[in-house]
Amino acid sequence: MATGMPNWLKQRAFLTPERTALIFENRTWTFAKVYEEAAKRTAALYKRGFSKGDRIGLLIRNTPEAVVLIHAMQQLGASAILLNSRLTAGELVWQLKDAEAAAMIYDPAHEGIAKDIQAELPCIESVQLSGEEMPVIREEFSLEDTCSIMYTSGTTGKPKGVRQTYGNHWWSAAGSAFNLGVSERDCWICSVPLFHISGYSILMRSVIYGVPIRLHERFNEDEINAVLKQGEGTIMSVVAATLSRLLRSSEGSYHENFRGMLLGGGPAPKPILEECAERGIPVFQTYGMTETSSQIATLSPEYSLTKLGSAGKPLFPCQLRIAAEGGEAPYKEGEILVKGPNVTVGYLNREEANKEAFVGGWFHTGDIGYVDEEGFLFVLDRRSDLIISGGENIYPAEVESVLLDHPAVIEAGVTGVTNEKWGQVPAAFIVEKEPVEEEELRRFCQSRLAKYKCPAYFIKVEGLPRNASNKLLRRELRNQFERDTF
Amino acid sequence: MATGMPNWLKQRAFLTPERTALIFENRTWTFAKVYEEAAKRTAALYKRGFSKGDRIGLLIRNTPEAVVLIHAMQQLGASAILLNSRLTAGELVWQLKDAEAAAMIYDPAHEGIAKDIQAELPCIESVQLSGEEMPVIREEFSLEDTCSIMYTSGTTGKPKGVRQTYGNHWWSAAGSAFNLGVSERDCWICSVPLFHISGYSILMRSVIYGVPIRLHERFNEDEINAVLKQGEGTIMSVVAATLSRLLRSSEGSYHENFRGMLLGGGPAPKPILEECAERGIPVFQTYGMTETSSQIATLSPEYSLTKLGSAGKPLFPCQLRIAAEGGEAPYKEGEILVKGPNVTVGYLNREEANKEAFVGGWFHTGDIGYVDEEGFLFVLDRRSDLIISGGENIYPAEVESVLLDHPAVIEAGVTGVTNEKWGQVPAAFIVEKEPVEEEELRRFCQSRLAKYKCPAYFIKVEGLPRNASNKLLRRELRNQFERDTF
Repeated sequence: MATGMPNWLKQRAFLTPERTALIFENRTWTFAKVYEEAAKRTAALYKRGFSKGDRIGLLIRNTPEAVVLIHAMQQLGASAILLNSRLTAGELVWQLKDAEAAAMIYDPAHEGIAKDIQAELPCIESVQLSGEEMPVIREEFSLEDTCSIMYTSGTTGKPKGVRQTYGNHWWSAAGSAFNLGVSERDCWICSVPLFHISGYSILMRSVIYGVPIRLHERFNEDEINAVLKQGEGTIMSVVAATLSRLLRSSEGSYHENFRGMLLGGGPAPKPILEECAERGIPVFQTYGMTETSSQIATLSPEYSLTKLGSAGKPLFPCQLRIAAEGGEAPYKEGEILVKGPNVTVGYLNREEANKEAFVGGWFHTGDIGYVDEEGFLFVLDRRSDLIISGGENIYPAEVESVLLDHPAVIEAGVTGVTNEKWGQVPAAFIVEKEPVEEEELRRFCQSRLAKYKCPAYFIKVEGLPRNASNKLLRRELRNQFERDTF
Repeated sequence: MATGMPNWLKQRAFLTPERTALIFENRTWTFAKVYEEAAKRTAALYKRGFSKGDRIGLLIRNTPEAVVLIHAMQQLGASAILLNSRLTAGELVWQLKDAEAAAMIYDPAHEGIAKDIQAELPCIESVQLSGEEMPVIREEFSLEDTCSIMYTSGTTGKPKGVRQTYGNHWWSAAGSAFNLGVSERDCWICSVPLFHISGYSILMRSVIYGVPIRLHERFNEDEINAVLKQGEGTIMSVVAATLSRLLRSSEGSYHENFRGMLLGGGPAPKPILEECAERGIPVFQTYGMTETSSQIATLSPEYSLTKLGSAGKPLFPCQLRIAAEGGEAPYKEGEILVKGPNVTVGYLNREEANKEAFVGGWFHTGDIGYVDEEGFLFVLDRRSDLIISGGENIYPAEVESVLLDHPAVIEAGVTGVTNEKWGQVPAAFIVEKEPVEEEELRRFCQSRLAKYKCPAYFIKVEGLPRNASNKLLRRELRNQFERDTF
């Protein structure tokens, strides 16, 4: 079995040079142009002594320059460490050192933080990378080579670098294609960070499928709604919070070209899914993580209504199991285990963590879910978010979903807080649409949830803590609760 | 890098059980049903002592039973030897022994020939395979395992068994998807033999993409035209002869659902391509062979008009080169070399042939072609068909293309025949649409071709010798010529 394949960007630029590769604001780039620009950066890096096998940090924004830099890393054969631009200098240095990075390349907008880092390792401003001559670009990628490294948010302990190989990204793109389909008329909207797997995987699909990525520097609901209404994008990756904002700032459906919202980043509240169904906005709910190089399960288009709330079945090359006490059975909750050629080859330099996470070829996600009698996956929660109260399991997402059903609530986050009697009790953080009494919310919950699941506290806030992918940070809520000593 | 993936049919039956897998005449089968039927055959084979690793001959017709049998071989883990039903008993026995087959399974229609074979090895009529209990079906396919063996027509010497692995078929399907696109609304029309790679690969795409195969027992232009006019198929695999018959028996274009004709099996005469362009029938010209598990290069949709006559560029995972004397250059003719994960791992038990065919990772196709300045491949001819006349190379396809341009000619085949003066001269075999003088044809050719390329003989015949895929057998023409001692 061959494990080499043609250098992706070079091959794409050879096969369909004139197709649009990238759309950003009012400009477009062809694949030939992106390749030309990436080759220049590669030449400049090569000249500075970097070469295949080096690990190089990227501190980027969602810009055309970032697209070119990511490709340049692949052209050089370097493993790119995709850095989260919301981190502090200290956190960044920790990751760069952990990954034994040779250097960090940064967007001029991050000059300030780069100055704090450059005492620790060479930092290169991206605009300085202009090559005078074309380097010898490698002809092939080896599917076993590490293409990218992304540190997981790490709900407990220090972050771990997830190694994603070229093979991981390739199989991820192929698995997605055989579920969602692929057409040369597609255009994937990317307003999620390129440094997260959600954004990075869009860029990989773009080059493998030969379709454009429509890049947005940041998520803006009015801008995106205009794009979707005009039919200028066919698929978009969202999380519940961004989808909700899109819904609130528009009415009706989108242009007929629009194939659907790929909704990831955690269990989706049902009210949002129901509203999309009513408005004729297709939603493909998906389950995936950095360790699976994007989707591992996605609801097929034909089940998007009948299996509302499910993350679907595994992609064609993938498998999943539920590790439930006493064995697997429909509706029995347990840890979600996954397997497939898109699953990471392991955490960088974390022998112990790898031993724990990979057992018999199955990756232990730490997330909780069940499958129904037909094998559809329902993700209940991230294990680390699980609230255990008086021996009963409470999944924050379920409580949040109920709160969001209340007309006065536009955002809700639930976390477990310490309680002498029950060990933990749920606390709810609420963003109001209109003023509402605490008693009213309490009654509303009690009418829909078992008593032990009802929040013991309702805290009204202006906004909820989210990471760069707009994923709710429930742990932050707990810290905030404890800081404010309720 | 993982090389295992879920058992294809089982996974597909799990993921989308209710989708249509197969359409034949007025009946349809879901993926769940095909899996159920395949499992029964697997159980019956298992009971008879067959198991993983066995090689089993299949002597089939294009029927639903054949689809189920092909899948049963995969479920069992046996390598299927796909037998050409046009061969004699002696030729079949030779292939079965060469492949060390454990048995042959045959369609009841082939009972006569099976009787002549059963003295040599166990022969099982397919209808006898009804399992009483479900066997333990393997969970995964290993991409390195040999899935199918197909003997190449062998223009010279004894046929060779081409080993096609699961990986070969997987990458072939993926490469095709990233060029032609894939949609759950697709339906691939298969009137080419399932025992040839052209038909077998449609079946593999069907299960990997989750789309139906519309199977026809034999090619009938009126039947297929009706299907295409009604929009009941979206893609169809054809060769020049069948496409020509489709064009002659209908007018105008097809239903808007129809995405295109995948035209393989040798260089296509330009008049046919031009007629398709005029009538708005999309054609994707392709180049491939048994050894590349179907397509290795295919013209992308956007170039189907501007690069008329080209077989396009390699599929995304593939590469090609022209081995021309004095090095590669645009328009320079030479042997076509190919590389990719869909290329066979080698001929069965043919060490010498493998050494010759694979040099430095490149497979030597024996075919002649050139690439233009943009890298588009133009296939001139199969090397074995090359006519060398007075030191000049003559490619039969070029001469045929000219003859087909004449309004009185509906089929043309050109071959080289022995000539004392020139070594070889071209001889043309003609099927007339309306009576035409030999002198008229000679003048027509002389006006369009260099003198040495003009046929020395024009032989009028009722039809041309073709194999089961409708590929012209030029060698037969030569034999016929010599037999008739012109």
